Amino acid sequence: MSHSSNPRQIKLGAFLMTDGHHIAAWRHPQANPYAHVSFEHFKELAQKAEAAKFDTIFFADSAAAWVDGEGVFAHTSRGAHFEPLTLLSALATVTTHIGLIATQTTTYNEPYHLARKFASLDQISGGRAGWNLVTSANGREAFNFNRDAHVVFEERYDRAHEFAEVVTGLWDSWEDDAFIRDKESGLFSDPEKSHVLSHVGKHFKVRGPLNVARSPQGRPVIVQAGSSEEGKELAAATAEVVFTAQQTLQDAQHFYNDLKGRLAKYGRSEDDLKIMPGVLPYVGRTQQEARDKFDLIQSLVLPKVGLSQLSNLLGADLSGYDIDGPVPDLPLTNNNRSRQALLVEQARREGLTIRDLYLSVTGGRGHWQLIGTPEQIADELEERFLNRGADGFNVMGPVLPAGLDDFIELVIPELRRRGMFRHEYEGRTLRENLGLKRPENSFKVKARQLREAELVR
Amino acid sequence: MSHSSNPRQIKLGAFLMTDGHHIAAWRHPQANPYAHVSFEHFKELAQKAEAAKFDTIFFADSAAAWVDGEGVFAHTSRGAHFEPLTLLSALATVTTHIGLIATQTTTYNEPYHLARKFASLDQISGGRAGWNLVTSANGREAFNFNRDAHVVFEERYDRAHEFAEVVTGLWDSWEDDAFIRDKESGLFSDPEKSHVLSHVGKHFKVRGPLNVARSPQGRPVIVQAGSSEEGKELAAATAEVVFTAQQTLQDAQHFYNDLKGRLAKYGRSEDDLKIMPGVLPYVGRTQQEARDKFDLIQSLVLPKVGLSQLSNLLGADLSGYDIDGPVPDLPLTNNNRSRQALLVEQARREGLTIRDLYLSVTGGRGHWQLIGTPEQIADELEERFLNRGADGFNVMGPVLPAGLDDFIELVIPELRRRGMFRHEYEGRTLRENLGLKRPENSFKVKARQLREAELVR
Repeated sequence: MSHSSNPRQIKLGAFLMTDGHHIAAWRHPQANPYAHVSFEHFKELAQKAEAAKFDTIFFADSAAAWVDGEGVFAHTSRGAHFEPLTLLSALATVTTHIGLIATQTTTYNEPYHLARKFASLDQISGGRAGWNLVTSANGREAFNFNRDAHVVFEERYDRAHEFAEVVTGLWDSWEDDAFIRDKESGLFSDPEKSHVLSHVGKHFKVRGPLNVARSPQGRPVIVQAGSSEEGKELAAATAEVVFTAQQTLQDAQHFYNDLKGRLAKYGRSEDDLKIMPGVLPYVGRTQQEARDKFDLIQSLVLPKVGLSQLSNLLGADLSGYDIDGPVPDLPLTNNNRSRQALLVEQARREGLTIRDLYLSVTGGRGHWQLIGTPEQIADELEERFLNRGADGFNVMGPVLPAGLDDFIELVIPELRRRGMFRHEYEGRTLRENLGLKRPENSFKVKARQLREAELVR
Repeated sequence: MSHSSNPRQIKLGAFLMTDGHHIAAWRHPQANPYAHVSFEHFKELAQKAEAAKFDTIFFADSAAAWVDGEGVFAHTSRGAHFEPLTLLSALATVTTHIGLIATQTTTYNEPYHLARKFASLDQISGGRAGWNLVTSANGREAFNFNRDAHVVFEERYDRAHEFAEVVTGLWDSWEDDAFIRDKESGLFSDPEKSHVLSHVGKHFKVRGPLNVARSPQGRPVIVQAGSSEEGKELAAATAEVVFTAQQTLQDAQHFYNDLKGRLAKYGRSEDDLKIMPGVLPYVGRTQQEARDKFDLIQSLVLPKVGLSQLSNLLGADLSGYDIDGPVPDLPLTNNNRSRQALLVEQARREGLTIRDLYLSVTGGRGHWQLIGTPEQIADELEERFLNRGADGFNVMGPVLPAGLDDFIELVIPELRRRGMFRHEYEGRTLRENLGLKRPENSFKVKARQLREAELVR
């Protein structure tokens, strides 16, 4: 395929959240309330996304129950679901091209375990693994890992930087051509091409080598999903895809330019990092049909569930306030800062009550919602894509599979008519499809630099 | 199927070790030296084992490279391989009945992560997951987890007991009928049937609930593989399958009766725990053919590899001793005690040199080797099975897939002729096929006991 026939196109992720991203999705007439224990459900979603040529499927995660609070837990379907690394490993065998991205926290994990599992997933899938590197936003995880309180924000980011360094170092334990496999001589691997990391840092001491071969992509793709100052800096240093929540074109452009502008100081170019904000589409053949879909699902939100979800997002208990009164002034908490600021700002700007605000986030947890016809939605996506607001989008079906079906059947054909989305995968690995470079082995690079320095001397 | 047509039969596991259990397997003419990065290789093995009606496939694991030591690493294929939980999740989708057992250490893991992954694998596979609960035998794991030295033996077992308690407690977070899924009322789960563990112990503080539904088997099957005094006690308290290395009928019987005898004090019956020693079969249509297979693979062992493997098993460096001299007196180390004692005892009994001893373990790492015709091998297995030496066997193909093929094509038909092995799976879950009870939910049991106590009062 010539380059001219293939200009810059929109990248698409299918962010899969069991029965849908909307908190009331499971109550929807089209929802399968057994989705949270149905592998078939996820197999169908992944295969549909692949048939439509999505770049990737994407899973959130938390090492604790997502929803908490008296009397709320029982009213959502978020309490029990598949663990994403086991699920993606299984989905790898029923798909062939689509990327497989799972969130795993750096706060309550060990880098050796994580490096192994993603490298193994990359082997199993033939080069389609991605790791969404996050610091834990769900403070309740602490209670499942021997702690009485959540690790504080600054410490989480400090640990995340070092965690990423260890994991990428471990992924380079074996050079691509380390395995000789010479039966005659009995030499299986070249000792010059296997490397012991011997990392000693503030948070971790990890010797290595990793006991998984270097993966088909060199390294699995690193994704990130933080929009705070610390999150952006971590992303600029290490991420290749960024997932973010941006409501307006202006905010999206600001975020895009800010983050891309940070890359140069790490010796990276703009193409090395793809920015893919979340989008929650309500698609109808007419505007009225789209609005009806939105109104139906919103009508299914129980007030106590909406209030609890908003309280969680804000990191503050709102149960003492008038639900139809204004959003009160809240102290900035340690937890999930950037999201909190965005929401309070939105409430002020639009004069929202607490009820209005919870209804505005129950669907997409602060993500961009689009309600309209395929043309209207394609217009909005195109505008952001063409004006440095996004390199692509992580599509969050409000109800699944219905919301993904709508996007595939109605929006993708429209994007294709405009030449904005692929008809066929460009390659077999996630890196090839996202247009990301295959990283060189860092031990090999260091050895070359050393040789060159010696030659100069 | 009536009970009379189905007397007690041999249980069979296929213990899969990349290219084979023999340390020189990768050099064998029939071996695929790319097996360590080939999902297709494992898919073929798993599907063959399932077609032959094996109860389970079984994977060892280590959170550090298995083989170490100057100049040895490069001569084995053990340095880089798949991570077993990701691999089994993928294999779950290409099989339908066979059990899926992976080893995961309690020494360098967190129970919440482990409980999630095995529960998720049990959901994905429709009730076929098993966890081989071990304490780390590979002391080098410590260096990958922020430590300068391995956790000591007693502490590892103490931690393992508590680890098992936390994991089984987490698996019971949701009762089997906890999910109501009533779209009309908006009640997804019954708050009376979801449970917070709130474990506080010496090693762990874990709140819960687990964010995975109770699994199809109630709980994944717990397997263990320790033969020390501490290992047997841990197994009696918690295991449902035990993997062990026993060389002689007498040793096997002693182990069997010892372990089964410990069950009563935990309120368990003999049927609640299946003992499945490892067996390394070299099968030939004639005795000579079997012996030739054995001699061929033994001839491929490089002396430095054999010596290093023996040193690892004994926890002592033997490189200073005459390779053709006797096995020296060795201090008992902290690491892997029971295996060490068994080997030294064997060397004394059989008058082996260091070379003899390493050649005796390179294939099976101290496991029982059988070299013979299908009839001879079936005789041996039957003898142990009928005389309280074993409930089944974990079959360790010296070279894979060839060694598994031989067992399936030659030995299994002979076992079937004798009525000793199934023609069809009895059920769909691993528990059903192994004849293990589905455990009741411990929270439910406690609540019932409380109610009964109140009625009495």
